[in-house]
Amino acid sequence: MIIETIDYNKGMVVIIDQTLLPNNEKFLNLRTLNEVAEAIRSLRVRGAPAIGIAASYGMLLHLDTMLRTESVDNPEYIFDREVGIKPFSFPDISIDEIRNCLWEAKKRLEVTRPTAINLFYALERMLSVFDTEEEDPRRLCELVAREAFSIHAEELETEIKIGENGARYIKDGMNILTHCNAGGLATAGYGTALAVLYTAKKEGKEFLVYADETRPLFQGARLTAWELEKNGIDVSVLCDNAAASLFAAGKVDLVIVGADRIASNGDVANKIGTLGLAILCKAYSKPLYVAAPLSTFDINIADGNDIPIEQRSGGEISYFGKRRIVPENVNIYNPGFDVTPAEYISSIITEKGVIENPGRGKIASFIRD
Amino acid sequence: MIIETIDYNKGMVVIIDQTLLPNNEKFLNLRTLNEVAEAIRSLRVRGAPAIGIAASYGMLLHLDTMLRTESVDNPEYIFDREVGIKPFSFPDISIDEIRNCLWEAKKRLEVTRPTAINLFYALERMLSVFDTEEEDPRRLCELVAREAFSIHAEELETEIKIGENGARYIKDGMNILTHCNAGGLATAGYGTALAVLYTAKKEGKEFLVYADETRPLFQGARLTAWELEKNGIDVSVLCDNAAASLFAAGKVDLVIVGADRIASNGDVANKIGTLGLAILCKAYSKPLYVAAPLSTFDINIADGNDIPIEQRSGGEISYFGKRRIVPENVNIYNPGFDVTPAEYISSIITEKGVIENPGRGKIASFIRD
Repeated sequence: MIIETIDYNKGMVVIIDQTLLPNNEKFLNLRTLNEVAEAIRSLRVRGAPAIGIAASYGMLLHLDTMLRTESVDNPEYIFDREVGIKPFSFPDISIDEIRNCLWEAKKRLEVTRPTAINLFYALERMLSVFDTEEEDPRRLCELVAREAFSIHAEELETEIKIGENGARYIKDGMNILTHCNAGGLATAGYGTALAVLYTAKKEGKEFLVYADETRPLFQGARLTAWELEKNGIDVSVLCDNAAASLFAAGKVDLVIVGADRIASNGDVANKIGTLGLAILCKAYSKPLYVAAPLSTFDINIADGNDIPIEQRSGGEISYFGKRRIVPENVNIYNPGFDVTPAEYISSIITEKGVIENPGRGKIASFIRD
Repeated sequence: MIIETIDYNKGMVVIIDQTLLPNNEKFLNLRTLNEVAEAIRSLRVRGAPAIGIAASYGMLLHLDTMLRTESVDNPEYIFDREVGIKPFSFPDISIDEIRNCLWEAKKRLEVTRPTAINLFYALERMLSVFDTEEEDPRRLCELVAREAFSIHAEELETEIKIGENGARYIKDGMNILTHCNAGGLATAGYGTALAVLYTAKKEGKEFLVYADETRPLFQGARLTAWELEKNGIDVSVLCDNAAASLFAAGKVDLVIVGADRIASNGDVANKIGTLGLAILCKAYSKPLYVAAPLSTFDINIADGNDIPIEQRSGGEISYFGKRRIVPENVNIYNPGFDVTPAEYISSIITEKGVIENPGRGKIASFIRD
């Protein structure tokens, strides 16, 4: 099942509001660049690949808004997945004005979430249309639209390949632990870590999944459990701190997670708590798999020490619903991510294939070859 | 500072309702055995030593209720810390009736929480008055009261000794991680793990404490942070899953926790999440200290496999305040405790001294000698 996590439709970025799941399956129509940036910042749309798609659509929306405002036709919207640009009186706009519009969008979007590289990858890719040296403003705008729709479509193909490449690791009768949400909601709709499980399920394999609730925002309890249950996969939720007990009870055969950024030495930044699971895998001799598209790799970064880690608001921890649970005047430590050294990772599963033992310096050649 | 966690006053068991902290410092007057049992079950009073004291006072309350009901004086209450039994017309009650009354209380209390051995230790100790073969009902009842008040007073002395015995491990400038609440609220009022910190603070040492929030009921965020802040100790709260990140950042010099039951080989049952911290300590070569009174040891149990682990309600995890966060039809795994093998523990700090490397079979001789 492909989840309709995000779409660009009639001049709006349409997302399912992930902060309201699982209780309320509400779709939001984002009509401005600022609304898209706010939705990313507040995790209404989250997950590294989904953030990338949202950012590219945010740029497209900003351009759509400028063009239709400047046009004498005053159309409802301009960009369309089927035709690229709908017929209308294209305004008298220069290449530089288009560039400024997209730069403005990039500046607004790139400050939303610092850790996931996919955000920056998508923004750069959108700007790559200027490398074509297309001099016709209308045709250039069409290229922008094609790029955004391509990022989304390619991401979905990528996820299906990740599922195919990883499913071999899932055997009948296994108990599988995952963390946070690396499913359709985090991506173009199929997932990374969960894509592997979906493909294994399609192949007829039966297995049990344990989902860490994933404090502070409960992406495991709310999102992963929701997705897996909808897909007919048997899932149990546990507190993050119960994972060690699960290993000790012999109920974990493997751990599979997604990634927000992978350094060139194979170190993986992912949702806070992943490092703890990696250390448990080592202690109990169980494999840890990371499933991520190539767009998650940052070969400009030597190792995990250079990955910027988002420090999120203490308010995510100090309140339980509307009730204050941490006393006033008490400090909060709330990093959004941690870095798992490459040597803890058994394999990284990508659309291009699998990197086994990524700690052994094989990332650069794998990506290049 | 000694916290007024629990008291027996004017025929009532008085507790601070820990489920309402830190927002609301409300004391409850428990007037019946059932109210005491409910308070233990629902964690209004919690922590292994405090559960033991509450249980002994619950027995005393049940006897107090029977005696005053049967007395022609119909007094407001009977047992008193200062005088033992207040002057009143002692009813015509047999030794067997006293025994039945206390047995009834024991049966009701022993099903509240299965893991903490202190509960069973306190109940057995209350019944030990029958070993005296005292044949006068009034004097026997006075022995019951003396026993309950002694359990409480001795526990407090024990905690002060634990603080003194453990403070040597705390050095100036250290960063210390703790889990759940092993402080005054969990005990007679001074603590076990936190007693060590309080004594170190009194000795003039300066250090920083990190408190795991401790899902699902946030004893670290709500109770440990509240206690430490009241005592002028610098404390930061983090999600349980951020502990690995804290170790990786070099911000943990040692971990200190309490215990709910210690097997004769040194395996320690403590709040869920302790095992994960133990594995992190090993991975990062940091010491793990367990602070617990001798009443926490269960020498009738060979190892941690035989410690009963309380499985708590899924509702503690599936709701966030009033909001459902785990979808319907999804399973919940919610053990209240885990077992840390003795070999992960650097030292167990007791009132009698310190057991270093408890994994090396020294528990029985330490307790006996």
